[in-house]
Amino acid sequence: MNKNIFFKKKDHVKINDILKCLSKNKQINNYKLKDIKELDLAEKNDVSFFHSIKYLESLKKTKSKLIITNKKYTNILPKKIKAIVVPNVLLSVAKVTLLFYPEALDDSFDINVKPIDVSKYPKSKIGRNILIGKNVNIGQNCSIGHNTIIEQNVKIGHNCSIGSNVLIRNSVIGSNTNILDGAIIGKKGFGFFPDKHQNIRYPHIGCVVIGKGVEIGCNNTIDRGSLSNTIIGDGTFLDNQVHIAHNVKIGKNCIITGQVGFAGSSSIGDRVMIGGQAGISGHLTIGDNVQIGGGSGVLKNIPSNSKVIGYPAKDIRNFLRENK
Amino acid sequence: MNKNIFFKKKDHVKINDILKCLSKNKQINNYKLKDIKELDLAEKNDVSFFHSIKYLESLKKTKSKLIITNKKYTNILPKKIKAIVVPNVLLSVAKVTLLFYPEALDDSFDINVKPIDVSKYPKSKIGRNILIGKNVNIGQNCSIGHNTIIEQNVKIGHNCSIGSNVLIRNSVIGSNTNILDGAIIGKKGFGFFPDKHQNIRYPHIGCVVIGKGVEIGCNNTIDRGSLSNTIIGDGTFLDNQVHIAHNVKIGKNCIITGQVGFAGSSSIGDRVMIGGQAGISGHLTIGDNVQIGGGSGVLKNIPSNSKVIGYPAKDIRNFLRENK
Amino acid sequence: MNKNIFFKKKDHVKINDILKCLSKNKQINNYKLKDIKELDLAEKNDVSFFHSIKYLESLKKTKSKLIITNKKYTNILPKKIKAIVVPNVLLSVAKVTLLFYPEALDDSFDINVKPIDVSKYPKSKIGRNILIGKNVNIGQNCSIGHNTIIEQNVKIGHNCSIGSNVLIRNSVIGSNTNILDGAIIGKKGFGFFPDKHQNIRYPHIGCVVIGKGVEIGCNNTIDRGSLSNTIIGDGTFLDNQVHIAHNVKIGKNCIITGQVGFAGSSSIGDRVMIGGQAGISGHLTIGDNVQIGGGSGVLKNIPSNSKVIGYPAKDIRNFLRENK
Repeated sequence: MNKNIFFKKKDHVKINDILKCLSKNKQINNYKLKDIKELDLAEKNDVSFFHSIKYLESLKKTKSKLIITNKKYTNILPKKIKAIVVPNVLLSVAKVTLLFYPEALDDSFDINVKPIDVSKYPKSKIGRNILIGKNVNIGQNCSIGHNTIIEQNVKIGHNCSIGSNVLIRNSVIGSNTNILDGAIIGKKGFGFFPDKHQNIRYPHIGCVVIGKGVEIGCNNTIDRGSLSNTIIGDGTFLDNQVHIAHNVKIGKNCIITGQVGFAGSSSIGDRVMIGGQAGISGHLTIGDNVQIGGGSGVLKNIPSNSKVIGYPAKDIRNFLRENK
Repeated sequence: MNKNIFFKKKDHVKINDILKCLSKNKQINNYKLKDIKELDLAEKNDVSFFHSIKYLESLKKTKSKLIITNKKYTNILPKKIKAIVVPNVLLSVAKVTLLFYPEALDDSFDINVKPIDVSKYPKSKIGRNILIGKNVNIGQNCSIGHNTIIEQNVKIGHNCSIGSNVLIRNSVIGSNTNILDGAIIGKKGFGFFPDKHQNIRYPHIGCVVIGKGVEIGCNNTIDRGSLSNTIIGDGTFLDNQVHIAHNVKIGKNCIITGQVGFAGSSSIGDRVMIGGQAGISGHLTIGDNVQIGGGSGVLKNIPSNSKVIGYPAKDIRNFLRENK
Repeated sequence: MNKNIFFKKKDHVKINDILKCLSKNKQINNYKLKDIKELDLAEKNDVSFFHSIKYLESLKKTKSKLIITNKKYTNILPKKIKAIVVPNVLLSVAKVTLLFYPEALDDSFDINVKPIDVSKYPKSKIGRNILIGKNVNIGQNCSIGHNTIIEQNVKIGHNCSIGSNVLIRNSVIGSNTNILDGAIIGKKGFGFFPDKHQNIRYPHIGCVVIGKGVEIGCNNTIDRGSLSNTIIGDGTFLDNQVHIAHNVKIGKNCIITGQVGFAGSSSIGDRVMIGGQAGISGHLTIGDNVQIGGGSGVLKNIPSNSKVIGYPAKDIRNFLRENK
């Protein structure tokens, strides 16, 4: 999804508008920027940002020529990149994102939904009291349950089964995917800057991208991404009451059991199996074919082909030895 | 419930159809089978299956004369029982179940629900926008909240209080029972055969049987059984956000606190108390009067009258000694 | 909230009615009591109760002149206080509460809700199929999503954003607060007296008081208090799938991440941060500025400014040392 179909973007923002927004007095030779993106996705006319040494590899490869960063990182920036130095990188990113996407802070419901026009879906099984937003695209041979609401611009593939009482917004869903009753997909993530006086929310311009042949369980909550997308790969199955925070990327053919929770921005490989009630901390990388025992708390990266269990999660052989 | 009121069963399936379905080339003297059932419940004309030594006692007592099993178990089968030897017992059971119940894989919503006919319930308190399926049977003096959907063939006893936004299907509910807001009861379990290409779903022909005087909390998810039923015994109370997987059997007068989760096929005794967020692994047996501390992870069977806590759950005296 | 706007209270109950209700044969010089309250909140004409040495300080300061208590506490009661001695204090409190609030055991839905009258909210964004009870008070510039139900007497401040499929009852909500999709707020707590034959429910006459600038996540469940209120302080943010039991008091500017659970009657300070899936046991006191790691199980009081993690939760330095 190269173009953001959910949030209106200004055609461009000028560099001096960005500097002004970040309280920089100095004005420079003005030029246009197209978008704000993460290092990996940024093109040469996009502004990007660098706030942690974890992203050093991405920094080296980025096409962006303009990076919002902190003073302590200026010396590792490639020569060809121009820096905007700020005290709080992510707060500045939030401000600049709003320059490009001025409507992105409002996460209230879609008031333009209307009762579904059944005649538009002759090959689908359509329930009662369904509300559909503008520009929603639903494939053939789908099933959509009672009281379900699908907000504007959502795309759903063919042969999907959507349950009753489902809420979907800001999402793109592949074919042959099931979304079970009561799932809530695509609301903004739990992202803000804590502040003793009033937490400062940041815009979530990402969406939720769900692959083909996926199953999303009852009462799941899957938040959309802030800058990048929340992704559920092809063939992955999620059980009931799973919570997936913003920017999480889950690979293909994973099996995620009931009440599992993912904190923000973690990346999960393919064919990962996670037992019930396990929790995955934020900003972690879990490799392919990893097996995580039920109830485990994963606090650090897990290499591919590992089996872990416990709190904190450790190699299952160590766990079994310690708990004989 | 001897007769399955939720899934249409063929009157019989012939042995040669079963052999063919399981890719057996050999045809034998053809005869009729009535149903597929677990060892304990099977009658002499039913086909059953044996896939784990855990069920040896049931094997010895079963009335079934025809068992789907694996090569490694053929030598322990009673002489009077005929075996169908297959490489993957449970996958074969799924295939044969579909022969008997050809519609059982479709778990999409009931399209034949209609707005409730209030005149049929003169002694009940009926909310707005309620949808009711065919052959639903609701007792006297019930209360049914707004936006609730009760799908076909569901039975509800007298004096029940059903909240708002509740979804009920494939369930039989006793008298004097409360189902609180947002609960989702009776969808198929999270059961399938993991496959690197595409997970293979298996049919869930069981239902959810909820006893008398039960309380089911808000946003609970209770899945129906695959071959047998998911059961909640008389007088048991469940708090909010509890998840109960397929085939779980919970006894009488249990107290299950918020966010507890049960993996599939575990069996819980009477008067069991479970603290918040505890998790019970699959295929376990928990005795009567067991107390399980909040947040515990139960990974093995627990004998009656035990008090356990921790991850993995252990005798509370050991836990306290280790955590002084 | 001095006056209970959600439950009808009798103007008074006479002392001899209370004695009779508690199976006391002796009748005394009759006089009127205004209400039943906890020690801290009781006025001189209210009956109160003392059931645990934890509340000794409150007992010394209470204005109540009549206390329901157990035989073992009679010798520590201040001289000016008259005792009603009973074997089970809380069960007796439940009975007496029902004398004052005879309708408080019925927790079924509000049958008098009606489709929202949009003309009454010219400055608000109003969704479809919204049901509103009698005497509901909603401030200006609010947004209320589709299918949401707000039951009688609920008060909501200005500039609030209420999502879709939200259920609110027995609650008072401050300005600038967001309640996200699927949240269920204000049902009775999971409170009853366990009994081998039939659990005895007790009345919940408290409500849920949510402050200003609060965010309540998707599918949260927040139960109202039994005698006192469940409270969420100003500026506190709750992520998805959080469960808050009856009588819990959460301070200001706290950050509570996904799937956290609070057992009943715990008290949380200001600026507390709690990681995902952590659980807080009942009747605990957590100080200000406490940080609790994700997945932790908090089993005892935590002093202000502590950082804890693990099960049971302990000082983070000890946890890190033990899990190197």
